[in-house]
Amino acid sequence: MNSDRLTVRLDRLRALSERLVEAAGFAPDEARQIVDVMLYAELRGNNQGLTKIAAGAVAPIDGASEVTTLIEKGAVLHLDGGQQNGMIVIADAARQAVERAKNHGIACVAVRNSSGSTGAIGYYVRRMAEAGVVGILMGGTPKNVAPAGSIDGVLGTNPMAVGFPNPSGAPVVLDLATSAIAYFGLIGARDRGEAIPGDVAMDADGKPTTDPAAAIGGAIRAFAGHKGSGLALMVELLTGALVGGGITGAPDANANRGTLIVALDPAALGTDDVAGGTNATLAAIKGARPEGDGDILLPGERGDRLMAQQLDAGEIEIDRQLLDALEAKADEAGISVN
Amino acid sequence: MNSDRLTVRLDRLRALSERLVEAAGFAPDEARQIVDVMLYAELRGNNQGLTKIAAGAVAPIDGASEVTTLIEKGAVLHLDGGQQNGMIVIADAARQAVERAKNHGIACVAVRNSSGSTGAIGYYVRRMAEAGVVGILMGGTPKNVAPAGSIDGVLGTNPMAVGFPNPSGAPVVLDLATSAIAYFGLIGARDRGEAIPGDVAMDADGKPTTDPAAAIGGAIRAFAGHKGSGLALMVELLTGALVGGGITGAPDANANRGTLIVALDPAALGTDDVAGGTNATLAAIKGARPEGDGDILLPGERGDRLMAQQLDAGEIEIDRQLLDALEAKADEAGISVN
Repeated sequence: MNSDRLTVRLDRLRALSERLVEAAGFAPDEARQIVDVMLYAELRGNNQGLTKIAAGAVAPIDGASEVTTLIEKGAVLHLDGGQQNGMIVIADAARQAVERAKNHGIACVAVRNSSGSTGAIGYYVRRMAEAGVVGILMGGTPKNVAPAGSIDGVLGTNPMAVGFPNPSGAPVVLDLATSAIAYFGLIGARDRGEAIPGDVAMDADGKPTTDPAAAIGGAIRAFAGHKGSGLALMVELLTGALVGGGITGAPDANANRGTLIVALDPAALGTDDVAGGTNATLAAIKGARPEGDGDILLPGERGDRLMAQQLDAGEIEIDRQLLDALEAKADEAGISVN
Repeated sequence: MNSDRLTVRLDRLRALSERLVEAAGFAPDEARQIVDVMLYAELRGNNQGLTKIAAGAVAPIDGASEVTTLIEKGAVLHLDGGQQNGMIVIADAARQAVERAKNHGIACVAVRNSSGSTGAIGYYVRRMAEAGVVGILMGGTPKNVAPAGSIDGVLGTNPMAVGFPNPSGAPVVLDLATSAIAYFGLIGARDRGEAIPGDVAMDADGKPTTDPAAAIGGAIRAFAGHKGSGLALMVELLTGALVGGGITGAPDANANRGTLIVALDPAALGTDDVAGGTNATLAAIKGARPEGDGDILLPGERGDRLMAQQLDAGEIEIDRQLLDALEAKADEAGISVN
């Protein structure tokens, strides 16, 4: 174990986190949903986790209103999130996408105007896949990614995720930022006093930088050059222009989060043996010759293993600095959790 | 102009190609569709073009049967291509996806068991976007891509494409192989006697190689390491297990092509001004500061420009060796085109 890492009781960390989110102004059931999304990331060793609470990024928006339905027609549902917290709104949207796909074979649930980070979006498509439905989810985010060939952050880190039901185990979940590093990867590195790789971001003048603070004031690169930049743009158009999420340059560009969910029920297609085909495909990958001594890992498999192991143990390893920040916030708020 | 390149009359090349495809056994309207797909690539300077004719890769399958409908229900259509040529089957499937999206808001058209390459899949989503509909298309292909961490080609090059309607010009079309190089990129390099980059493929023993022939006998890498490999696997599951396309290791793994099309009608959502949002997004990208002296290009823009220019001129630049191969095939078949 890294000396800057601590192992703590999972139930205590969950309770502490929920109380902090409640103290920020959320109802208990809302806090439970928000912390469930964040702990999912934290349990997988992913930087989209509780650091959002420590950073003060989890708080209700003044003047937020109820979620309203813009369109509800057959396979299509379009919601306005009314600036409600994204982790609550999108968890519900994903549930509705599952239901709608089971009725129509395929469904689209679009959400505009949720607020704040939606957290690790693999969470939602995993839930969808656990319910038996293929989930594809794209999220629009604040604008800090430079398209290939540019130095200005006009795109979001725009993650996309796909969840595929696995008849023989945990769903196969791909969850990737279309940026070379996630925004909270910058925040985490800055808070830990670490450098970032030299090819993932640039400073405000467009010069490559390894300083996360300079990168936060500059722009992140898309992953994999033109291919990743193209994917980032497509997520931008699908979650911005199409769905009505914030458009780069507009006053609500960063506040109005857009999300597009497509859900597909395998049972609605005419394929005989989806489970058999899935098993055979995954077995072929696991049975391939490795390159060097490494394991061949499915998307998300490393995180799956870590999560299963920590859930079994009832304990979780987190950054000492993160725990300190959470405890300090709890002290401030007069929260005590045993 | 490169000395190995020639400029030829577009109408003559089209006619020559159509006659060759007819000579291979296709009906005139089928030949027209097939050549339209291939010329689209060739006009854009893309290696998915007429080299397929020169390589003998365009021919009807003995015992191919009619396309049959496995499922047709609301927003979902699932077709069995009966081993008909993929360029014909998928062009029709994309047209049906557009119609179905206009009726249901969102549509899924799945196709199993088409035969041969579908060509540059950007073609299909561009047609869909020209018809006003967002198109997402994924294609399963023969198995020659090694998942990250492996040296065996158990995945396809598995391209994905997204077409987004652009109110102010050509649709924005992203078309990317999830492999580090397209399979026909290897064929083209081999035929031209060129080396391939050292980090895109490996030989049969899993050693990195710059020899395209060794790579053809070995495996291609996914693009961008784990992210690209994850995308390749998701396309594999969606076009294989889900749709009923060929599963790696199965006898029909390479012959049974699976394709998944999702179509989404922007008019079915509750967004006020999709066109305005699209224009603003694209303008922000074009208005960003460039890195160095380069242009900031949208996905497909370089190809769009080249295509427009060659269509205007009525002339197209192609590899001398490719033209020689086509002419030789024509001579053999007794075809003469002025």
